[in-house]
Amino acid sequence: MSRPSDDVTLEQLPLREDLRGRSPYGAPQLDVPVRLNTNENPYPPPPELVADVTEAVRAVAAELHRYPDRDAVRLREDLSAYLSVSTRVPLTERNLWAANGSNEILQQILQAFGGPGRSALGFEPSYSMHPIIAAGTRTDWVPAPRRADFTLDTVRAAEIVAERAPDVVFLTSPNNPTGGSIPIEDLEAVLRAAPGIVVVDEAYAEFSSQPSAVNLLDAYPAKLIVSRTMSKAFAFAGGRLGYLAAAPAVVDALQLVRLPYHLSVLTQAAARAALAHADQTLASVAKLAAERDRVAEALRGQGFAPVPSDANFILFGRFTDAPASWKSYVDNGVLIRDVGIEGHLRVTIGTPEENDAFLRASKEVPR
Amino acid sequence: MSRPSDDVTLEQLPLREDLRGRSPYGAPQLDVPVRLNTNENPYPPPPELVADVTEAVRAVAAELHRYPDRDAVRLREDLSAYLSVSTRVPLTERNLWAANGSNEILQQILQAFGGPGRSALGFEPSYSMHPIIAAGTRTDWVPAPRRADFTLDTVRAAEIVAERAPDVVFLTSPNNPTGGSIPIEDLEAVLRAAPGIVVVDEAYAEFSSQPSAVNLLDAYPAKLIVSRTMSKAFAFAGGRLGYLAAAPAVVDALQLVRLPYHLSVLTQAAARAALAHADQTLASVAKLAAERDRVAEALRGQGFAPVPSDANFILFGRFTDAPASWKSYVDNGVLIRDVGIEGHLRVTIGTPEENDAFLRASKEVPR
Repeated sequence: MSRPSDDVTLEQLPLREDLRGRSPYGAPQLDVPVRLNTNENPYPPPPELVADVTEAVRAVAAELHRYPDRDAVRLREDLSAYLSVSTRVPLTERNLWAANGSNEILQQILQAFGGPGRSALGFEPSYSMHPIIAAGTRTDWVPAPRRADFTLDTVRAAEIVAERAPDVVFLTSPNNPTGGSIPIEDLEAVLRAAPGIVVVDEAYAEFSSQPSAVNLLDAYPAKLIVSRTMSKAFAFAGGRLGYLAAAPAVVDALQLVRLPYHLSVLTQAAARAALAHADQTLASVAKLAAERDRVAEALRGQGFAPVPSDANFILFGRFTDAPASWKSYVDNGVLIRDVGIEGHLRVTIGTPEENDAFLRASKEVPR
Repeated sequence: MSRPSDDVTLEQLPLREDLRGRSPYGAPQLDVPVRLNTNENPYPPPPELVADVTEAVRAVAAELHRYPDRDAVRLREDLSAYLSVSTRVPLTERNLWAANGSNEILQQILQAFGGPGRSALGFEPSYSMHPIIAAGTRTDWVPAPRRADFTLDTVRAAEIVAERAPDVVFLTSPNNPTGGSIPIEDLEAVLRAAPGIVVVDEAYAEFSSQPSAVNLLDAYPAKLIVSRTMSKAFAFAGGRLGYLAAAPAVVDALQLVRLPYHLSVLTQAAARAALAHADQTLASVAKLAAERDRVAEALRGQGFAPVPSDANFILFGRFTDAPASWKSYVDNGVLIRDVGIEGHLRVTIGTPEENDAFLRASKEVPR
């Protein structure tokens, strides 16, 4: 019982030319026993957090007929308190901004500081959403290289930035999907060279041994934006809460491009409840870092070459045919990620049992 | 104790030129006893709905460490069931798409079908976010006129659309802020003339006496998108849930531009719980429509000229100095909206008591 509207194809629609032939972004979501593919935190929220999130939602649900606080002031206060404590840099809600995931944060940054006729530069391989969001905001994407071992050659990076003069530079620390952090003096070298905005994407910062770029905000207030997420260390991927720290003027700029009422009362209330449990949630960080080091060591023992990681995942090789090996992991009940880097796959650190399952599968897969 | 980052001004940032000097969108949020300024539903969610939203959130909160369903399939199923029943047009989840408020829906539509080098046309005055989202996506905005009484001159509208050939046409029915609906044969006249996409913004459709544009989907599957929201009739403004109905190929197109995991598990769960109470929530619609007619009649009795409305608000005049009269309403404890139409103000229909307070204030304000 096909209806006329079912018969129209994507090709018959007046879609923008640059979108034709593309596929939606997203890791395959397969029903496999052990899922180590999207860098989620494997530890569920503690029962106390679930109870507090539920209670917070109950409290605001009676006012669901009213629009939320457009400026999410109390949430930004709580985020600034957390970030001030964890980085030891004094921040207020005027330094903080929040959105539905760090993807929306990055999109707003490019709407304000990128867009048509402007460019954004990133050192690849890195977070694959950076060029996708650049495309979505019609910002020219300038790919720049890393060393063969995936570390950032800071001297060369600063030269490229000075030479290409992009409006926005993305630095990812720790870098996804390769795992390494950028030391603060290297961040500073790029900041000095950059003519425009530098976004340091710290989605995995809580796992890192390096100090946060937030320490550089006072030195580079008109250039630096530090983006963060509650998806990883905070185990709040389902709640979709990304945020940033920057000079108050940057926050003012983003309010010119944000959609009004972008953060629901549910998101604001639930995120605040989750932040109140930061100490408890972040206890998983040390466990995951220790497991990461154990898994890396075990992979080395099996003859793999894991890339040194400061995050909750490991990129490792070498495989003759990474897509075939990825498929073999799936056949062994373990879903990891083929991030498109030749000879390599990426595994998220899970619980010790999940990691053991992954390591057992690693013995079986073709190299 | 000013810090260096506090001293940077917006003017010192490398903001896009077209954003310079702008102010963020949003109605003034003032602490006034009677707030009739943002077309919210004045009736709070019933206790059963609050309980079910809370329970739905509790059920998903234990999985907050996992990313949400990227495609929000079950929510789209529930939306399609609601819309099929209310419009009597059979729809499936493949016809539905959802986002964080209808603003994000409209932004995704312009990212896919508008953007640099493309244009969007709207008949003004209408929803002021249409040109703002066009600007945010760098889509050229083409304003077109309405009659002096704010109705749409369909013959002229179809001529303008044929002549200007915009990539996207916005039709708002009922129109915000003027309140009138567009009869289905008039929608069809514009659809026939349009070379590209026609978005019928039906944010206030539940209040309207006219059939939904959804009835035209099978006749114009490659052109028509009907956008909706749960903010108004559903009393779910705080939950931020916008959606659309279109051919499945249109939904495929939007998946190319949506940010991955844009809808949190909380939003998906809470919206589904609210949809399960549709009959109960929508009982307020008839009450509000009756109050709207009573308020319009009373305004006429006071010598005002209310514009005929099919929505939950009334645009009315005439004022010699509308901003001064708006201020006088605030001084009388009633917050309404100055939407920038000379000689007119817009009032949202509230509870009978709120409407009485508004009508009392109307006797006091300068004309």
